[in-house]
Amino acid sequence: MSYQIHIGPNIRKSPYFDATVADGVRSFSVYNHMFIPGNFGDPDAEYDRLLNGVAMWDVAAQRQVEMAGPDAGRLAQLLTPRNLNATKVGQGRYVPICDHDGMLINDPVLLKLSEDRYWLSIADSDLVLWAGAIAKERGLDVTVSEPDVSPLAIQGPKAADVTAALIGDWIRDLRYFWFRETELDGIPLVVARSGWSKQGGYELYLMDGSRGSALWDKVKRVGASFGIGPGAPNDIERLESGLISYGADIRRQTLPTDPFEMGFDAMIDLDGSHDFIGKDALKSIRDRGPRRRRVGVVIDGTPISGNEHPLPLMQGTSDQAEQVGIVSEVAHSRRLGKNIGVGLAQVELADTASDLFVDLAEGRRKIVLSTLPFA
Amino acid sequence: MSYQIHIGPNIRKSPYFDATVADGVRSFSVYNHMFIPGNFGDPDAEYDRLLNGVAMWDVAAQRQVEMAGPDAGRLAQLLTPRNLNATKVGQGRYVPICDHDGMLINDPVLLKLSEDRYWLSIADSDLVLWAGAIAKERGLDVTVSEPDVSPLAIQGPKAADVTAALIGDWIRDLRYFWFRETELDGIPLVVARSGWSKQGGYELYLMDGSRGSALWDKVKRVGASFGIGPGAPNDIERLESGLISYGADIRRQTLPTDPFEMGFDAMIDLDGSHDFIGKDALKSIRDRGPRRRRVGVVIDGTPISGNEHPLPLMQGTSDQAEQVGIVSEVAHSRRLGKNIGVGLAQVELADTASDLFVDLAEGRRKIVLSTLPFA
Repeated sequence: MSYQIHIGPNIRKSPYFDATVADGVRSFSVYNHMFIPGNFGDPDAEYDRLLNGVAMWDVAAQRQVEMAGPDAGRLAQLLTPRNLNATKVGQGRYVPICDHDGMLINDPVLLKLSEDRYWLSIADSDLVLWAGAIAKERGLDVTVSEPDVSPLAIQGPKAADVTAALIGDWIRDLRYFWFRETELDGIPLVVARSGWSKQGGYELYLMDGSRGSALWDKVKRVGASFGIGPGAPNDIERLESGLISYGADIRRQTLPTDPFEMGFDAMIDLDGSHDFIGKDALKSIRDRGPRRRRVGVVIDGTPISGNEHPLPLMQGTSDQAEQVGIVSEVAHSRRLGKNIGVGLAQVELADTASDLFVDLAEGRRKIVLSTLPFA
Repeated sequence: MSYQIHIGPNIRKSPYFDATVADGVRSFSVYNHMFIPGNFGDPDAEYDRLLNGVAMWDVAAQRQVEMAGPDAGRLAQLLTPRNLNATKVGQGRYVPICDHDGMLINDPVLLKLSEDRYWLSIADSDLVLWAGAIAKERGLDVTVSEPDVSPLAIQGPKAADVTAALIGDWIRDLRYFWFRETELDGIPLVVARSGWSKQGGYELYLMDGSRGSALWDKVKRVGASFGIGPGAPNDIERLESGLISYGADIRRQTLPTDPFEMGFDAMIDLDGSHDFIGKDALKSIRDRGPRRRRVGVVIDGTPISGNEHPLPLMQGTSDQAEQVGIVSEVAHSRRLGKNIGVGLAQVELADTASDLFVDLAEGRRKIVLSTLPFA
């Protein structure tokens, strides 16, 4: 079945909304209370462009939480278990955010714009409310807000060529997650080497929402000779690459998950002297050991469609099956020629565990565990 | 243009999802990270049922934030400017929630289930993060969580008849916003006299998500002789009735609004001794006076379609026009035979202000201000 979505004022339009409509967007989802394109009518071509060419995505729904003021760095450090001591101006870091119980509530990229100004480029939860509450309750001298900043992603093997042609060859020297402020025909931007794919790419953080169409059209024009086309964050590629989707793989209220379960151990600094929210809870979790671990799954049989909701990962026979984990998202990978998925399994479940299955819309299918990424 | 929405695991399904699909749902939106039905294919009939008969709505996306423990009441009071002293067990209250700057971040209904257990039945923002942060930072002995609770609304002039036939005649004696725990064929419920319309009605707060289809089907069966049919929260009726839509009329990050601007003066207890978040900021706002006021607008000309995004409220001639407010949502009311809308106007703008206009998809239209509700 296919369902429509109503474009109404209770959900925000991206600054690129009109441009994506002009380019034939066919579906939207909602992310951080904002419409985000789903596809432009040819998912296979959109996937192929990401893997073999270059794609442009409206990811304005990846909103920024700005922390500005003398205590901005202190607040940033309070919010994440990751030790930020060595973080430089111009550097981005992936920073898991935990609540006081040590459970993940978002997994943004932190951008350090200056010693007293940071952005959290967020996944789909209202981190601005969380950060604002912490700042005020701790009496910190920092302003938490959502600035007029809207990323446009350029992703794929030819993304560097397009971005260099747009901005300059210096972008080739940016290290992964690093960024720099610049402008393009007077349009103020932050250019970062980042993006929610493993195909390489850049994100242009537009700092003036009134210039959305201008930026989109400029990228489209300069990218034309490289074969650029519109697309959107791609679930098949993200599964192949083992990227995390907050909302699908983790959600505080329905799929509560701690950072050890996600394999973030190296980012959780429990032995340093710095304080952060969830530190005590995370020490307890570390001491008892994680309950689950992140896994890939390979699913038997003919190509499947994606799942609509999380699926119990089952072990046993029909008579005597028990749940041993959760499969959060699945898809058919044309490139790998198999059905794949990601999820969380009980930590005792061996890589070689047998008799595993999952119930899809297509019926019951056998599965085996796999390491991540697939490709 | 119409756009599709993809049903995927990154957004939650309501417990009533399968039932609404079986009943022919045609569109969804997303609210609190959950799919919520938009319409079932015949918006006029759905409106008429709400006004003249009875409608059933999947409003599970109106999630609950539960506060449980010895300090639950203390936390509830901290979160809202409204004085909760006289609130009884079994009573609901509309409680504006403000941040430390006195700006609205949600406008839920508070349900007092017992002296140490409350629910906030929320609009579209992650209030669970906010309430959780405040509780922990203040060291309160309270657990903040999202319980397995999913409202189903029965709305319209025949809603009492349907609900009485389902639950018992005692529901006719419930006062507005009051509620009681009960069960229906073993399905645990809270029944409240409430709902997001002015046509009268009840909300069944399902307390076991596995029974969604069972409850939906039961309401449908018992409601059949009263002509019940599926529907969804109705934007035209809410505009006619002057109800508030957090997300359209207010949004902390894009339409920052204080409670005085919304006309909540009687709910803002600044002179009592109890402490709450935003009290100092609200005193300042009260002392300087609100900058804007909530207004209705009547729009000239032929029937309009709804707006896709907020519209500047303009005054003057084309040569010399200035913005004097914002029109957040508009629609054509068949019942009233006119185009209507709601918004915020500068406080100096008189009810009789002339030369007002708004630019719609249909072109420029003259407007006049109106009191609320329209009907």
